[in-house]
Amino acid sequence: KQLMLDRPLVAGVCLFMCLLAGGLCIPDPRYRESLIQEEASMQTGGQVVLNEKEKRLDTRLLKMKQDEVARADFPPAMHFFKARDLIRNSPMFSLLQKMPKGGALHVHDLAMVDIEWLVKNVTYRPLCYMCFTNTQSIRFIFSSQWPEPLPNCSPWNLLETLRAKVVNTTDLDNRIRGKLTLFTDLDPEKVYPNQDVVWDRFEQAFMSMWGLVTYAPVFREYFYQGLTEFYKDNVMYLEVRALLPEIYELDGRTHDKAWTLKTYQDVTRQFTAEHPDFFGTRIILTVHRGANSSVVTEAVEEAMKLQRDFPDIMAGFDLVGREDVGRPLWYFRDALSLPTERGVELPFFFHAGETDLQGTDVDQNLLDALLFNTSRIGHGYALVRHPVAKELSRKKGVALEVCPISNQVMKLVTDLRNHPAAALMSENHPLVISSDDPAMFGASGLSYDFYEAFVGFGGLRSHLGSLKALAINSIRYSSLNASQQEKALTLWQRRWDKFVSENGLGPKHHN
Amino acid sequence: KQLMLDRPLVAGVCLFMCLLAGGLCIPDPRYRESLIQEEASMQTGGQVVLNEKEKRLDTRLLKMKQDEVARADFPPAMHFFKARDLIRNSPMFSLLQKMPKGGALHVHDLAMVDIEWLVKNVTYRPLCYMCFTNTQSIRFIFSSQWPEPLPNCSPWNLLETLRAKVVNTTDLDNRIRGKLTLFTDLDPEKVYPNQDVVWDRFEQAFMSMWGLVTYAPVFREYFYQGLTEFYKDNVMYLEVRALLPEIYELDGRTHDKAWTLKTYQDVTRQFTAEHPDFFGTRIILTVHRGANSSVVTEAVEEAMKLQRDFPDIMAGFDLVGREDVGRPLWYFRDALSLPTERGVELPFFFHAGETDLQGTDVDQNLLDALLFNTSRIGHGYALVRHPVAKELSRKKGVALEVCPISNQVMKLVTDLRNHPAAALMSENHPLVISSDDPAMFGASGLSYDFYEAFVGFGGLRSHLGSLKALAINSIRYSSLNASQQEKALTLWQRRWDKFVSENGLGPKHHN
Repeated sequence: KQLMLDRPLVAGVCLFMCLLAGGLCIPDPRYRESLIQEEASMQTGGQVVLNEKEKRLDTRLLKMKQDEVARADFPPAMHFFKARDLIRNSPMFSLLQKMPKGGALHVHDLAMVDIEWLVKNVTYRPLCYMCFTNTQSIRFIFSSQWPEPLPNCSPWNLLETLRAKVVNTTDLDNRIRGKLTLFTDLDPEKVYPNQDVVWDRFEQAFMSMWGLVTYAPVFREYFYQGLTEFYKDNVMYLEVRALLPEIYELDGRTHDKAWTLKTYQDVTRQFTAEHPDFFGTRIILTVHRGANSSVVTEAVEEAMKLQRDFPDIMAGFDLVGREDVGRPLWYFRDALSLPTERGVELPFFFHAGETDLQGTDVDQNLLDALLFNTSRIGHGYALVRHPVAKELSRKKGVALEVCPISNQVMKLVTDLRNHPAAALMSENHPLVISSDDPAMFGASGLSYDFYEAFVGFGGLRSHLGSLKALAINSIRYSSLNASQQEKALTLWQRRWDKFVSENGLGPKHHN
Repeated sequence: KQLMLDRPLVAGVCLFMCLLAGGLCIPDPRYRESLIQEEASMQTGGQVVLNEKEKRLDTRLLKMKQDEVARADFPPAMHFFKARDLIRNSPMFSLLQKMPKGGALHVHDLAMVDIEWLVKNVTYRPLCYMCFTNTQSIRFIFSSQWPEPLPNCSPWNLLETLRAKVVNTTDLDNRIRGKLTLFTDLDPEKVYPNQDVVWDRFEQAFMSMWGLVTYAPVFREYFYQGLTEFYKDNVMYLEVRALLPEIYELDGRTHDKAWTLKTYQDVTRQFTAEHPDFFGTRIILTVHRGANSSVVTEAVEEAMKLQRDFPDIMAGFDLVGREDVGRPLWYFRDALSLPTERGVELPFFFHAGETDLQGTDVDQNLLDALLFNTSRIGHGYALVRHPVAKELSRKKGVALEVCPISNQVMKLVTDLRNHPAAALMSENHPLVISSDDPAMFGASGLSYDFYEAFVGFGGLRSHLGSLKALAINSIRYSSLNASQQEKALTLWQRRWDKFVSENGLGPKHHN
């Protein structure tokens, strides 16, 4: 008797179907379904149409994700240091590793390579000296002569001699390793009770590895090793935030930024020649946001020069370091206006909104990054609390570089389901997933961050289309020009099709 | 030399001012300022115009907030159980207590009153029996005869006798208190490691107090005491989610739901007569979402009947209990369609989106609540991940009842700055602040939740206008009809003006 009338359905206006008898209304299941579909189609990758093979892989993926969600210990809700083994051993992670993920657009120069490589390889080289600072950190230097003592550091030890003296070199290596990364087997909540502690330890770790990786022979190899690790993780392109530090030789001679940039270019060319399905690297020159105006002005000048001299590898400019204690972007407005004033192209890739403070000067960085016409936003964690900046970012197509594990380890968020990118992905806000400083967090490549994003942000709603969209985003929002992007996409698509073919049917004999 | 041209500024189109020389562009400080102002005006209370007295109070407030933010231990970032003393002793909290906050629209019947009152007053009454369950919980009953034994519970003890026997009644009282609330001095992260544990303990605590508060003489007094506590916290109106449980007398006779509802009405009338600046109470009948269809259908039938018989006090209907393990709203669609089918008015006030699961059936509750034309949404924690539901909620003016402390204690979020309401308040999404089950969380009234919302959600951006808007929202989004709302607003405004006058100048001799 309750005949339903089919009415044209307009979201937000006609919410109800009317019952013939009495003109009363109850929700129409078809209308409900249309709204559910509408919402699903709004998410990142929600409009991606999958082919038959992709659909089969998607079915496998969904099953894997259900298994992850059904776990008593849900990895995205846990601190990554505790979740890493669970993630690493999951079938989902294996699949994400194999997946061609496109580019990593937010990675820092000195945290790309597994610390194990530094400890087991670099510190075992001859003429490696180490001292212990009075802040419980360590410093290294390679030198043909006994190096000058460092202030606030113990006398230098030649590591070779030290290792010969100590009973247990494993203990020593573990101690060194612990100083070069934040990762720990201890309870991370105890070791890093707040942001101040974790940031301090983070910066100490960079200072500890400084002398190891800025040694010219290591520097080349470190970058080559970094490319190798990302390549093995099926990342085909990198945009590296690089300080372009002074690189030194065994006799103490040093090289300038141009030399360092050229080294990045040479190593990239070598690597790409050896791995034709790797697309390349571009460099974003960075300077510390704790610096004063004249240092930043000088860095902008240098960046403009390098951008002119190395247009292929130079992508642009950024400021790094903890936003909350650094100077806001607006403080550097004169320096940042220089390129425009001179009619020189210098793209910006500003870190902004990596903060949970609200209403401070630093909290305006998001808006200012956009006003300075930034090409992308590093992190943008605070964007959801800035509706004007959010709308500008969306309208201008300025993508966020979302680094879930970094934000968790640096104590912006505990349960990654609460990461603002979960909301942003539900409405397909422009964004890419990256890993920031994987070596610092005990991660590597992009796959761990892809796991967190895919399992933690979308829950059961995200699917293979979401992953595909994220990979494509990483090329579309890169600094590559249009024709390079097409090339990169073609290369990526070939690898993607292969991946889908090889994994769509599940492991042999396991169907 | 760099003459700026003043141009019409349109957001998202003209982001830059042009320099006369060369036609190049750098951000215009005036345009930047206009965007900052635009964003500030978009937040909850961003359009409120403050009078001179209010501005003075706002200056005091801002100073207080700066003090809170400057703390090493920032309370909204801490678990409430650890932060409570810090909050309680802050000048900000004292001020928020004095502030007329309007109505509390999301409060449950059996968690309104400080547990101290139950322990020190109710359990000391004659003929109070207690037994210990084999799940380390307790049960109570008042009875003129020795009560029948309960399954899975120790033999009954007459509390009077037990207290006479034990060496230390303080220990016993502490033990009882610990069973009636989640609040603990121990490390809450240890005691409640996950949602399963905290929800189990939460429901056990309700079952423990059940026999105490459903005893007819206590029931009246409990509710009176609840009104008193909210009134003292400067809350003038309550909408109480009530199970309308069977109330019993000393001889075992019981009363029906109508009796219980009438008791709420009588006690409210008495309280309002004694406190003319208290506006009243309305009741939302609730049933547990773990129930089956026929139980829910029966509850809807009962609700329609009570709505007809007690139109003044009855506000509507809702389902309660943990969403993740309960049945989704859509499961009960037939029952929930009954009022519409019969042409009977029964407003809904559905809990929805109190979950961090994504893509599950339960995760559709938000959309379904809106499709069933809910008047408000309880919690709506997941709303930011549902863009279609979010837009419907905004367009239809369906306010969220945001309960920050509840969401933190029940383990949806750790640092309250990550609560989605921070983003929602930045764009003035319709919402009110409430306290859910303050007695369970060691809170009381609304002030603790207002503290978390005001200090934690807005940071330095929110101001007296935000608080004023939240108080006004609590009346505008209440179930009161238009003329009642005007009355309530007039009453509130009088109290507000008094509050502003008395507090705008700071403590005497402290200027």
